[in-house]
Amino acid sequence: MVRKIKVGDKASISHVFTDQSVRDFATISKDANPIHLDDAAAAASIFGKRVVHGMLVASLFSALLGVELPGEGTIYLGQTLNFKAPVFLGEEVTASVEITEIREEKSIAKLRTLCVNDKGVTVIEGEATVKFA
Amino acid sequence: MVRKIKVGDKASISHVFTDQSVRDFATISKDANPIHLDDAAAAASIFGKRVVHGMLVASLFSALLGVELPGEGTIYLGQTLNFKAPVFLGEEVTASVEITEIREEKSIAKLRTLCVNDKGVTVIEGEATVKFA
Repeated sequence: MVRKIKVGDKASISHVFTDQSVRDFATISKDANPIHLDDAAAAASIFGKRVVHGMLVASLFSALLGVELPGEGTIYLGQTLNFKAPVFLGEEVTASVEITEIREEKSIAKLRTLCVNDKGVTVIEGEATVKFA
Repeated sequence: MVRKIKVGDKASISHVFTDQSVRDFATISKDANPIHLDDAAAAASIFGKRVVHGMLVASLFSALLGVELPGEGTIYLGQTLNFKAPVFLGEEVTASVEITEIREEKSIAKLRTLCVNDKGVTVIEGEATVKFA
Protein backbone atom coordinates (compact mmCIF):
# COMPACT_ATOMS: atom_id res chain seq x y z
CA MET A 1 0.00 0.00 0.00
CA VAL A 2 1.34 3.37 -0.99
CA ARG A 3 0.82 6.18 1.46
CA LYS A 4 -0.29 9.57 0.20
CA ILE A 5 2.38 12.11 1.11
CA LYS A 6 1.91 15.84 1.56
CA VAL A 7 4.04 18.93 2.14
CA GLY A 8 4.85 19.24 5.82
CA ASP A 9 4.97 15.50 6.52
CA LYS A 10 7.91 14.69 8.81
CA ALA A 11 9.82 11.69 10.10
CA SER A 12 12.74 11.46 12.47
CA ILE A 13 15.11 8.98 14.05
CA SER A 14 17.50 9.26 16.98
CA HIS A 15 20.70 7.29 17.05
CA VAL A 16 24.02 6.93 18.86
CA PHE A 17 27.01 5.94 16.74
CA THR A 18 29.42 3.75 18.66
CA ASP A 19 33.11 3.01 18.31
CA GLN A 20 32.17 -0.29 16.68
CA SER A 21 29.90 1.31 14.08
CA VAL A 22 32.60 3.85 13.17
CA ARG A 23 35.19 1.09 12.80
CA ASP A 24 32.81 -1.04 10.72
CA PHE A 25 31.99 1.93 8.50
CA ALA A 26 35.69 2.66 8.00
CA THR A 27 36.20 -0.92 6.86
CA ILE A 28 33.33 -1.07 4.38
CA SER A 29 33.68 2.47 3.01
CA LYS A 30 37.51 2.48 2.86
CA ASP A 31 37.41 5.77 4.78
CA ALA A 32 40.26 5.21 7.22
CA ASN A 33 40.84 8.89 7.98
CA PRO A 34 42.62 8.85 11.39
CA ILE A 35 40.32 11.57 12.71
CA HIS A 36 37.68 8.84 12.97
CA LEU A 37 39.84 5.98 14.19
CA ASP A 38 42.95 7.20 16.02
CA ASP A 39 42.63 8.82 19.43
CA ALA A 40 46.02 10.54 19.26
CA ALA A 41 45.50 11.97 15.76
CA ALA A 42 42.01 13.11 16.72
CA ALA A 43 43.30 14.74 19.93
CA ALA A 44 45.73 16.78 17.83
CA SER A 45 42.96 17.88 15.45
CA ILE A 46 40.64 20.87 15.66
CA PHE A 47 37.96 18.59 17.14
CA GLY A 48 40.04 17.29 20.04
CA LYS A 49 38.60 13.81 19.87
CA ARG A 50 37.40 11.24 17.36
CA VAL A 51 34.38 12.15 15.22
CA VAL A 52 31.85 10.01 13.41
CA HIS A 53 32.17 9.98 9.60
CA GLY A 54 29.82 12.64 8.22
CA MET A 55 28.63 10.31 5.51
CA LEU A 56 27.68 7.72 8.12
CA VAL A 57 25.62 10.28 10.01
CA ALA A 58 24.04 11.40 6.73
CA SER A 59 23.00 7.84 6.03
CA LEU A 60 20.28 8.34 8.64
CA PHE A 61 18.55 10.52 6.02
CA SER A 62 18.71 7.65 3.55
CA ALA A 63 17.25 5.33 6.18
CA LEU A 64 14.36 7.71 6.87
CA LEU A 65 13.63 8.31 3.19
CA GLY A 66 13.66 4.65 2.19
CA VAL A 67 11.91 3.23 5.22
CA GLU A 68 9.72 5.97 6.72
CA LEU A 69 8.99 8.90 4.44
CA PRO A 70 8.19 8.59 1.59
CA GLY A 71 9.05 4.96 2.49
CA GLU A 72 9.13 1.76 0.48
CA GLY A 73 9.77 2.14 -3.23
CA THR A 74 11.50 5.52 -2.83
CA ILE A 75 14.35 6.15 -5.24
CA TYR A 76 17.10 8.48 -4.05
CA LEU A 77 17.84 11.08 -6.72
CA GLY A 78 19.95 13.60 -4.88
CA GLN A 79 21.17 14.96 -1.59
CA THR A 80 22.97 18.10 -0.51
CA LEU A 81 24.89 17.99 2.75
CA ASN A 82 26.36 20.83 4.77
CA PHE A 83 28.44 19.48 7.62
CA LYS A 84 28.04 22.19 10.26
CA ALA A 85 29.48 20.63 13.41
CA PRO A 86 31.21 17.39 14.40
CA VAL A 87 29.36 14.36 15.75
CA PHE A 88 31.28 12.57 18.48
CA LEU A 89 31.17 8.88 19.27
CA GLY A 90 28.56 8.06 21.87
CA GLU A 91 26.61 11.28 21.28
CA GLU A 92 22.94 10.97 20.44
CA VAL A 93 21.86 12.67 17.23
CA THR A 94 18.39 13.09 15.76
CA ALA A 95 17.93 13.15 12.01
CA SER A 96 14.71 14.41 10.46
CA VAL A 97 13.24 14.78 7.01
CA GLU A 98 10.34 17.05 6.08
CA ILE A 99 8.60 17.26 2.73
CA THR A 100 8.88 20.77 1.30
CA GLU A 101 7.75 20.26 -2.29
CA ILE A 102 5.88 17.66 -4.30
CA ARG A 103 5.73 17.47 -8.09
CA GLU A 104 2.87 15.01 -8.51
CA GLU A 105 3.19 14.69 -12.28
CA LYS A 106 6.76 13.43 -11.95
CA SER A 107 6.37 11.69 -8.57
CA ILE A 108 9.29 13.74 -7.30
CA ALA A 109 9.53 15.24 -3.82
CA LYS A 110 12.03 17.48 -2.10
CA LEU A 111 12.67 17.18 1.62
CA ARG A 112 14.53 19.34 4.09
CA THR A 113 17.04 17.13 5.89
CA LEU A 114 18.35 18.11 9.28
CA CYS A 115 20.43 16.42 11.95
CA VAL A 116 20.89 17.89 15.43
CA ASN A 117 22.86 16.69 18.43
CA ASP A 118 21.57 16.30 21.99
CA LYS A 119 22.51 19.92 22.74
CA GLY A 120 20.25 21.12 19.93
CA VAL A 121 23.18 22.07 17.69
CA THR A 122 22.66 21.47 13.97
CA VAL A 123 25.32 19.04 12.78
CA ILE A 124 24.12 18.48 9.20
CA GLU A 125 21.59 20.31 7.07
CA GLY A 126 20.65 19.86 3.47
CA GLU A 127 18.01 18.80 1.00
CA ALA A 128 17.01 15.46 -0.47
CA THR A 129 15.34 14.84 -3.82
CA VAL A 130 13.50 11.57 -4.27
CA LYS A 131 11.16 9.80 -6.65
CA PHE A 132 8.31 8.32 -4.63
CA ALA A 133 6.25 5.24 -5.38
CA MET B 1 54.01 17.15 6.16
CA VAL B 2 51.29 19.01 4.34
CA ARG B 3 51.17 18.60 0.59
CA LYS B 4 50.63 21.66 -1.59
CA ILE B 5 47.47 21.14 -3.59
CA LYS B 6 46.56 22.75 -6.91
CA VAL B 7 43.59 22.98 -9.25
CA GLY B 8 43.48 19.91 -11.46
CA ASP B 9 44.91 17.51 -8.86
CA LYS B 10 43.03 14.20 -8.95
CA ALA B 11 42.72 11.02 -6.94
CA SER B 12 40.65 7.91 -7.55
CA ILE B 13 39.77 4.59 -6.00
CA SER B 14 38.10 1.49 -7.43
CA HIS B 15 35.97 -0.73 -5.26
CA VAL B 16 33.48 -3.59 -5.34
CA PHE B 17 30.72 -3.51 -2.73
CA THR B 18 29.76 -7.00 -1.61
CA ASP B 19 26.63 -8.47 -0.09
CA GLN B 20 28.40 -8.41 3.27
CA SER B 21 29.32 -4.73 3.06
CA VAL B 22 25.74 -3.81 2.11
CA ARG B 23 24.36 -5.82 5.04
CA ASP B 24 26.90 -4.31 7.43
CA PHE B 25 26.06 -0.81 6.22
CA ALA B 26 22.34 -1.46 6.66
CA THR B 27 23.01 -2.47 10.25
CA ILE B 28 25.14 0.51 11.23
CA SER B 29 23.21 3.16 9.27
CA LYS B 30 19.72 1.84 10.14
CA ASP B 31 18.96 1.94 6.40
CA ALA B 32 17.09 -1.35 6.03
CA ASN B 33 15.35 -0.40 2.78
CA PRO B 34 14.43 -3.80 1.21
CA ILE B 35 15.74 -2.68 -2.17
CA HIS B 36 19.22 -3.18 -0.71
CA LEU B 37 18.59 -6.35 1.29
CA ASP B 38 15.70 -8.38 -0.08
CA ASP B 39 16.07 -10.19 -3.41
CA ALA B 40 12.32 -10.52 -3.98
CA ALA B 41 11.54 -6.87 -3.19
CA ALA B 42 14.45 -5.74 -5.36
CA ALA B 43 13.33 -8.00 -8.24
CA ALA B 44 9.93 -6.28 -8.15
CA SER B 45 11.52 -2.81 -8.20
CA ILE B 46 12.53 -0.67 -11.16
CA PHE B 47 16.11 -1.93 -10.76
CA GLY B 48 15.30 -5.64 -10.99
CA LYS B 49 17.90 -6.61 -8.42
CA ARG B 50 19.46 -5.40 -5.19
CA VAL B 51 21.40 -2.13 -5.29
CA VAL B 52 24.13 -0.76 -3.05
CA HIS B 53 23.08 2.12 -0.77
CA GLY B 54 23.92 5.38 -2.57
CA MET B 55 25.33 6.86 0.61
CA LEU B 56 27.69 3.91 0.96
CA VAL B 57 28.97 4.42 -2.58
CA ALA B 58 29.30 8.16 -1.88
CA SER B 59 31.44 7.39 1.13
CA LEU B 60 34.25 6.59 -1.32
CA PHE B 61 34.45 10.37 -1.88
CA SER B 62 34.90 10.89 1.84
CA ALA B 63 37.62 8.25 1.85
CA LEU B 64 39.47 9.94 -1.01
CA LEU B 65 39.17 13.41 0.51
CA GLY B 66 40.30 12.43 3.99
CA VAL B 67 43.05 10.02 3.00
CA GLU B 68 44.29 10.98 -0.48
CA LEU B 69 43.38 14.48 -1.63
CA PRO B 70 43.65 16.88 0.09
CA GLY B 71 44.43 14.10 2.63
CA GLU B 72 45.16 14.12 6.33
CA GLY B 73 43.68 17.01 8.28
CA THR B 74 40.92 17.64 5.74
CA ILE B 75 37.61 18.77 7.21
CA TYR B 76 34.49 17.91 5.23
CA LEU B 77 32.30 21.00 4.87
CA GLY B 78 29.80 19.94 2.25
CA GLN B 79 28.85 17.54 -0.48
CA THR B 80 26.26 17.51 -3.23
CA LEU B 81 25.23 14.15 -4.63
CA ASN B 82 23.24 13.35 -7.74
CA PHE B 83 22.46 9.66 -7.89
CA LYS B 84 22.32 9.02 -11.65
CA ALA B 85 22.24 5.24 -11.93
CA PRO B 86 22.12 2.24 -9.58
CA VAL B 87 25.21 0.42 -8.35
CA PHE B 88 24.70 -3.33 -8.12
CA LEU B 89 26.35 -5.67 -5.66
CA GLY B 90 29.56 -7.15 -7.04
CA GLU B 91 29.96 -4.40 -9.65
CA GLU B 92 33.23 -2.48 -9.68
CA VAL B 93 32.91 1.29 -9.38
CA THR B 94 35.60 3.96 -9.58
CA ALA B 95 35.22 7.13 -7.55
CA SER B 96 37.35 10.18 -8.31
CA VAL B 97 37.83 13.65 -6.91
CA GLU B 98 39.40 16.58 -8.76
CA ILE B 99 40.22 19.98 -7.35
CA THR B 100 38.34 22.69 -9.25
CA GLU B 101 38.82 25.71 -7.00
CA ILE B 102 41.09 26.77 -4.15
CA ARG B 103 40.53 29.73 -1.83
CA GLU B 104 43.96 29.96 -0.24
CA GLU B 105 43.03 32.67 2.26
CA LYS B 106 40.34 30.46 3.79
CA SER B 107 42.05 27.09 3.13
CA ILE B 108 38.90 25.97 1.37
CA ALA B 109 38.82 23.86 -1.77
CA LYS B 110 36.05 22.61 -4.04
CA LEU B 111 36.34 19.29 -5.81
CA ARG B 112 34.34 17.66 -8.56
CA THR B 113 33.28 14.23 -7.34
CA LEU B 114 32.41 11.51 -9.82
CA CYS B 115 31.71 7.80 -9.59
CA VAL B 116 31.45 5.58 -12.67
CA ASN B 117 30.74 1.88 -13.06
CA ASP B 118 32.76 -0.63 -15.06
CA LYS B 119 30.70 0.15 -18.19
CA GLY B 120 31.70 3.80 -17.96
CA VAL B 121 28.25 4.92 -16.82
CA THR B 122 28.19 7.77 -14.30
CA VAL B 123 26.46 6.55 -11.15
CA ILE B 124 27.05 9.58 -8.89
CA GLU B 125 28.20 13.08 -9.62
CA GLY B 126 28.50 16.08 -7.38
CA GLU B 127 30.78 18.52 -5.65
CA ALA B 128 32.65 18.46 -2.36
CA THR B 129 33.70 21.45 -0.28
CA VAL B 130 36.53 20.94 2.20
CA LYS B 131 38.82 22.85 4.50
CA PHE B 132 42.37 21.64 3.91
CA ALA B 133 45.25 21.50 6.37
